[in-house]
Amino acid sequence: MDRDQAHYLFGVMRQAVGAKVALFNGRDGEWLAEVAEAGKRGGVLSCLEQTRPLQMPPDLWLIFAPIKKARTDFIVEKAAEMGAARILPVQTDFTNSERIRQDRLQAHAVEAAEQCGGTFVPEVTDLQKLSRLLDHWPQERQLMFCDEAEVGQRLFLDRVEGGGRPGAEGRCPAYRPGEVSQPGSWAILIGPEGGFSEAERKRLHGMEQAHVVSLGPRILRADTAAVAAMTLWQQSLGDW
Amino acid sequence: MDRDQAHYLFGVMRQAVGAKVALFNGRDGEWLAEVAEAGKRGGVLSCLEQTRPLQMPPDLWLIFAPIKKARTDFIVEKAAEMGAARILPVQTDFTNSERIRQDRLQAHAVEAAEQCGGTFVPEVTDLQKLSRLLDHWPQERQLMFCDEAEVGQRLFLDRVEGGGRPGAEGRCPAYRPGEVSQPGSWAILIGPEGGFSEAERKRLHGMEQAHVVSLGPRILRADTAAVAAMTLWQQSLGDW
Repeated sequence: MDRDQAHYLFGVMRQAVGAKVALFNGRDGEWLAEVAEAGKRGGVLSCLEQTRPLQMPPDLWLIFAPIKKARTDFIVEKAAEMGAARILPVQTDFTNSERIRQDRLQAHAVEAAEQCGGTFVPEVTDLQKLSRLLDHWPQERQLMFCDEAEVGQRLFLDRVEGGGRPGAEGRCPAYRPGEVSQPGSWAILIGPEGGFSEAERKRLHGMEQAHVVSLGPRILRADTAAVAAMTLWQQSLGDW
Repeated sequence: MDRDQAHYLFGVMRQAVGAKVALFNGRDGEWLAEVAEAGKRGGVLSCLEQTRPLQMPPDLWLIFAPIKKARTDFIVEKAAEMGAARILPVQTDFTNSERIRQDRLQAHAVEAAEQCGGTFVPEVTDLQKLSRLLDHWPQERQLMFCDEAEVGQRLFLDRVEGGGRPGAEGRCPAYRPGEVSQPGSWAILIGPEGGFSEAERKRLHGMEQAHVVSLGPRILRADTAAVAAMTLWQQSLGDW
């Protein structure tokens, strides 16, 4: 154990030699271990027995455009909880964020895995351009995206309406939970708060792997849409 | 318009006489209005025409146990976005929170309605005891609840396992999206992070209106579970 781990386990959690600890590393399932040596700068854990096998989530990617920090953190946490296998932040034409802290987002995914009882930790990739991701899109991976109408600033009772554009009719087939016949590899793409650009929408609708999903008559924020879309997918094609 | 509204519209948003504004009050749909008078301490808006009728959400309550402030805010925001008609914070046996700021939570619901393009704002009720709510449970209202297994502190690679109790088998019928035959009035109940007490679980399973819903093999945080459960309900029985 390194210094930080020893500090946490012995300093913060007040564990000592003989204490039982559950370990997982995202690759080998879950193991019961015992503290064999405990020090201020390190320690040794003895693995006793495997308590659970590695449980891989279904092959689902969550692709999203980073938004405000708290909501970006939230999307990563939720993707890990909901059972995404890989989390891919992308820059779209209307994304404001130029950079992300990949290491911080990966740490959020680890925390979510600890919390939700999983034995798998999804990889958070570096920020990449959506256009580049689509240039190299795997032939066999289906893509669900939410082509939500954009709502400008819209306010309660007494404020300014900034506009609102009705969503264009999807040209690619609709994803209807329970009626979709493509299992296997999938990705869910959540657009930025301002929606996709016309060029992006045209490109997405033209992909043979694309499916448009409807998330109801209200406009959902990106983080809400991510959880809702993953719910529909997990429930009809995933491991729920 | 009152002073705050005038400050927002004229000071922050830089609108002037003649500007068009979209109004909604949660009761009369959406109206196009024009600024007739603009001042520092107030103003007058003239309603021009109704642009949308009131769109009521389905008769769905979201009942939840308040958790940390940010996650409580989040649950209220998500419930409004997802189309809950009423939001009811409750104290359960394992709820830590003794009080909430009802006015602040109601303001979050208003903001979410502005954001999501709705014309309806769900009411946020005052904190009440779950036991008291169940004492007066309406005969005709179905109740979906998530009887998630409790997971104690569980950590990545090298930390302490605080326990984990497998979820008891639900005794009341399961909610399976697409197979549920009770439309009408519903409520979704999301338990606290520590789960329900044995007494609460027994009481809930014994209710004739109760349905247990499964949200997959991973343990979801309360805020994630709220969005996921509302998604399943809206998609099978609501207005999606």
